[in-house]
Amino acid sequence: MDTRPIGIFDSGVGGLTVLTELRKKLPNENYIYIGDTKRFPYGSKSKETIIQISKRIVDTLISKKVKLIVIACGTATSQALEELKQIYNIPIIGIIEPTVENQMNEKVKKVGVIATRGTIRSKVWETTICKKNPSIAILSKETPLLAPMAEEGWIDNEVAKSAIKEYMKDWKEENLDALILGCTHYPLFEKLLRKELGDTIKIINTGKEIAKSLEQYLKENDLKNEGIGTEEIYLTDTESNFLNVAKQLFHKEIKIQKIDL
Amino acid sequence: MDTRPIGIFDSGVGGLTVLTELRKKLPNENYIYIGDTKRFPYGSKSKETIIQISKRIVDTLISKKVKLIVIACGTATSQALEELKQIYNIPIIGIIEPTVENQMNEKVKKVGVIATRGTIRSKVWETTICKKNPSIAILSKETPLLAPMAEEGWIDNEVAKSAIKEYMKDWKEENLDALILGCTHYPLFEKLLRKELGDTIKIINTGKEIAKSLEQYLKENDLKNEGIGTEEIYLTDTESNFLNVAKQLFHKEIKIQKIDL
Repeated sequence: MDTRPIGIFDSGVGGLTVLTELRKKLPNENYIYIGDTKRFPYGSKSKETIIQISKRIVDTLISKKVKLIVIACGTATSQALEELKQIYNIPIIGIIEPTVENQMNEKVKKVGVIATRGTIRSKVWETTICKKNPSIAILSKETPLLAPMAEEGWIDNEVAKSAIKEYMKDWKEENLDALILGCTHYPLFEKLLRKELGDTIKIINTGKEIAKSLEQYLKENDLKNEGIGTEEIYLTDTESNFLNVAKQLFHKEIKIQKIDL
Repeated sequence: MDTRPIGIFDSGVGGLTVLTELRKKLPNENYIYIGDTKRFPYGSKSKETIIQISKRIVDTLISKKVKLIVIACGTATSQALEELKQIYNIPIIGIIEPTVENQMNEKVKKVGVIATRGTIRSKVWETTICKKNPSIAILSKETPLLAPMAEEGWIDNEVAKSAIKEYMKDWKEENLDALILGCTHYPLFEKLLRKELGDTIKIINTGKEIAKSLEQYLKENDLKNEGIGTEEIYLTDTESNFLNVAKQLFHKEIKIQKIDL
């Protein structure tokens, strides 16, 4: 049994979708979440900036004695994970590898990936999927408005509906087997995406995949906790709409603490 | 007569609305435009980052022998203009002072300002308006999705319509005399804003105000050019939707050059 908390970070509210899935699968763990609302969005920032910010957050989480770190952010995973792994000894898990490992099997012939500009241009999803299963056809698309919309709390209004429609209009006829939500904000739009793309497509929420892989990892490495399960949520800027979105997601009040970093 | 070009910069496509107005009012000038599409959006970046980027762009414009510089970007004006003025001898004009000087007269009782998060939180519009005319009531609102929507080229689709509707819903009954478009992307939404707010409100396009003030300034300081009038447009990232938006705006093909900075 290892009571140390699991550290999670994201550029804002998006990583809460990952925390939600972790909490479902691993309810006895303690979590420390850092949402970098002050610097949101990461999607349009340079690789160098994202590495620099991520290092600062990882240092903070390490100082809070976490046992491992989940990068619950598509952009930070695609831009900084490799560099962070080279610098730190602590285990760091991003959103891409668990998803590809668990989901990109031989049943999938054609997959779509939607994500921020930085993630799409890095081509990390393509290269990781190709390494695992080179026969999968991959379509990818930058959807830069979706994360800012989620941070505004616009996840089910007319703006969200028409943006999803606009982004998905040329993918409706593509007969995708699966759609990867390459940014952790996007599960908030799952219903709207489902409505556009139909019932047969598999919509892949990376938070669920991280939760599966993490459960396995904790078991294998004897790192599980068996406690009540607590969470501490820190934001770098508390003036955001985080609380409103969090309430919609968790259906309860959430206590937020301000953190300077 | 002074044939040196006028330097203009913005985080992306927005400053073209200013270039359009300058070109109308001062057709004989030569213009050099830098759109920092690589780092777009500025609206959510820190003050320090924006000052650092702006200095780099100003240095580049100075190396191209411009006679003065127009910051055609609301966020860079609010975050960096004062600092730039202290560093450089070359005249630098932002979007706020000309607008307040020309428009915030005694006829205006109540004004709304919409802009990016950085601009609104800086309160520069409030303080500048108050200095000029302390009796004006000022409402302000962060509208962080509008600039990214414009960069996507979404200026008249369903997403744009519903976003403008959503942002303006609590201002419809405010009986504003004027609405200041505190980001140079926003004139692209002028029709939609007009539709929401009615015919009597004055919608203030900062590009027009800069053009008026600049004409005056060039005349007074004997800096006018009387040539054919040319333009050079540089972008830091040419993969953007800039060209599509520019075509809609200028109704002609535009030649773009890539610049690294």
